[in-house]
Amino acid sequence: MAYRPADFPTPYLAVDRDVLDSNIANMAMLARERGLLLRPHAKTHKCREIALRQLESGAAGLTVATVSEAEVFVAGGVTDVFIAYPLWVDRQRGDRLSSLMERCLLRVGVDSVEAARVLAANTDRRAGLEVLIEVDSGHHRTGVIPEMAAEVALAAVDAGLEVRGVFTFPGHSYGPGRASTASTDEATALSRAAATLLSAGVDATVVSGGSTPTAALTQSTTLTEMRPGSYVFNDAQQLEMGSCDLEHVALTVVATVVSRAPGRVVLDAGSKVLGADRPAWITGFGRLFDHPQACLSELSEHHATVLWPELMPPPELGTAVRVVPNHVCSAVNLADELVVEVGGKVVDCWRVVARGANH
Amino acid sequence: MAYRPADFPTPYLAVDRDVLDSNIANMAMLARERGLLLRPHAKTHKCREIALRQLESGAAGLTVATVSEAEVFVAGGVTDVFIAYPLWVDRQRGDRLSSLMERCLLRVGVDSVEAARVLAANTDRRAGLEVLIEVDSGHHRTGVIPEMAAEVALAAVDAGLEVRGVFTFPGHSYGPGRASTASTDEATALSRAAATLLSAGVDATVVSGGSTPTAALTQSTTLTEMRPGSYVFNDAQQLEMGSCDLEHVALTVVATVVSRAPGRVVLDAGSKVLGADRPAWITGFGRLFDHPQACLSELSEHHATVLWPELMPPPELGTAVRVVPNHVCSAVNLADELVVEVGGKVVDCWRVVARGANH
Repeated sequence: MAYRPADFPTPYLAVDRDVLDSNIANMAMLARERGLLLRPHAKTHKCREIALRQLESGAAGLTVATVSEAEVFVAGGVTDVFIAYPLWVDRQRGDRLSSLMERCLLRVGVDSVEAARVLAANTDRRAGLEVLIEVDSGHHRTGVIPEMAAEVALAAVDAGLEVRGVFTFPGHSYGPGRASTASTDEATALSRAAATLLSAGVDATVVSGGSTPTAALTQSTTLTEMRPGSYVFNDAQQLEMGSCDLEHVALTVVATVVSRAPGRVVLDAGSKVLGADRPAWITGFGRLFDHPQACLSELSEHHATVLWPELMPPPELGTAVRVVPNHVCSAVNLADELVVEVGGKVVDCWRVVARGANH
Repeated sequence: MAYRPADFPTPYLAVDRDVLDSNIANMAMLARERGLLLRPHAKTHKCREIALRQLESGAAGLTVATVSEAEVFVAGGVTDVFIAYPLWVDRQRGDRLSSLMERCLLRVGVDSVEAARVLAANTDRRAGLEVLIEVDSGHHRTGVIPEMAAEVALAAVDAGLEVRGVFTFPGHSYGPGRASTASTDEATALSRAAATLLSAGVDATVVSGGSTPTAALTQSTTLTEMRPGSYVFNDAQQLEMGSCDLEHVALTVVATVVSRAPGRVVLDAGSKVLGADRPAWITGFGRLFDHPQACLSELSEHHATVLWPELMPPPELGTAVRVVPNHVCSAVNLADELVVEVGGKVVDCWRVVARGANH
């Protein structure tokens, strides 16, 4: 049976609230059972209602990627925020951090001696600001090698900052079959980095890691905290990695079939709604929730071309279909609101309050 | 010398107004010299100020991709709009089109008999609505094969719609060395489609095509109108295709170097600002305007990893750099405003008024 759309013009983002709540509860339980604090990454949903649901279900605080995301969520009532990013804090950003510190417990990332010094110079440290040293655990993006963590930490302490530990993002977990190695790398790198801090006499109470693909593998023998993000909604990436099943997908893009030709149908959701993310290992530009065999072979700004399997009757023109985006964080950041459904009926509309809060 | 950023937190989008104006003037002149009407695609800039500049420089009207883009630009004073998309017009969309028709000359695309019938059934045709039949000229996305154009056109006429001609988007022009073939395909397909309309006794006054890569090749022997979009700003795609030089790039994303490691630097502009678009033929996720040799090898949501050539001194932490996005239409759709500069000084701030107007 064709999906019955709500009274919204397509394309729009629909959230199944029951699946969302179940995803939130399951991750909270997983963290509790492992003895880990859960600090979910809000960059995925950018939505106050979802952040509050995560906190109510037991999350210790929120993770964000930018100062402006922190500003939005603190304005929305969140009181414990970690900006998991190696910020370069000029005077202007320092003023914004100082202002945040007056209203919440604030923790930020640092991955160089220079960044530690400018952070200290440009913020009002009396207000209380915690620092975690970012460690590269194999993703080779930001973060120092574990052996250098103490050098950065000592520079931060010398500059007057309060270092509380280390963090990493095991981003090399993204890809089929990669989670296990990435999880081991994460634990090894964090463990080494924390040891160098302790040897140098620096606090390493917080050992923070985690991603959705590695979540189920995280152990509290090394880590104290995990920061998965995508698990609230899941997406085609998580599906193809095996991190979730279709029943755990809480967000889809509702689109209309606008054109048909032999072997293909075209939907009115393109890269400006789904996002253009396509890692090399994934099979298409997203998945059809109700027809997972069909391949989204091409994406333009306002078109998704779907190669339709020969033996399956293609949907009629005007049919609404649900698309699972490749990377849900990108799709949400393109939307102003999420249409919230329970049992296929619209029950609410949530603002993507931190959409575009990327600075 | 390092680029000196304006007093905005990075990442932000900066427009060089002189380059923008020169791009607008050059395309207007090209169209005039060829005897073609210019109907630039506003999906690239989504910005009222730029639309008005295009119209003032001689554009005959505006092209948009969605009903909501049309609504935004008509509210901003534009009076002649073509929605170059095979719309599926349900009752709700029909009401929106009828409302638009009261305030502007409106033209829309159709590529099936069924779509023509629902368009006619759900709009108030007395208000005046022109239809162009979309033709597939080789991009194999939407549009009918030229031989079927008359069938769709006759169905539209039968339903009471006013058919004015045919249109296509030669999207297979995107890629190095592809523009010439795509331009020939475009002219051939449009010419055949227009001939079938005329043979069937249907008006084919408007023969509309065009893309930025094929713009310089467009001839008025077949086409009456061209609809390039990206030329106002250009981007890394246009650079790598040879459609423009670096001096024609009018928009860059200003980002800060936040992290360094041997062989790489990391910027604070990721896919949520640059867009994740990366066709198979392009060499990276964007280009550094001042260091075109450096390769943007990886993009996360808030990080661009730049492989830094060994013999070039890498920029210091905290340095602002300018990134040319791969696909400028995607980058603009992620931003709320454009910081407008003349000679490197900020002179204005333009709202991306149709950002997210994708339905």
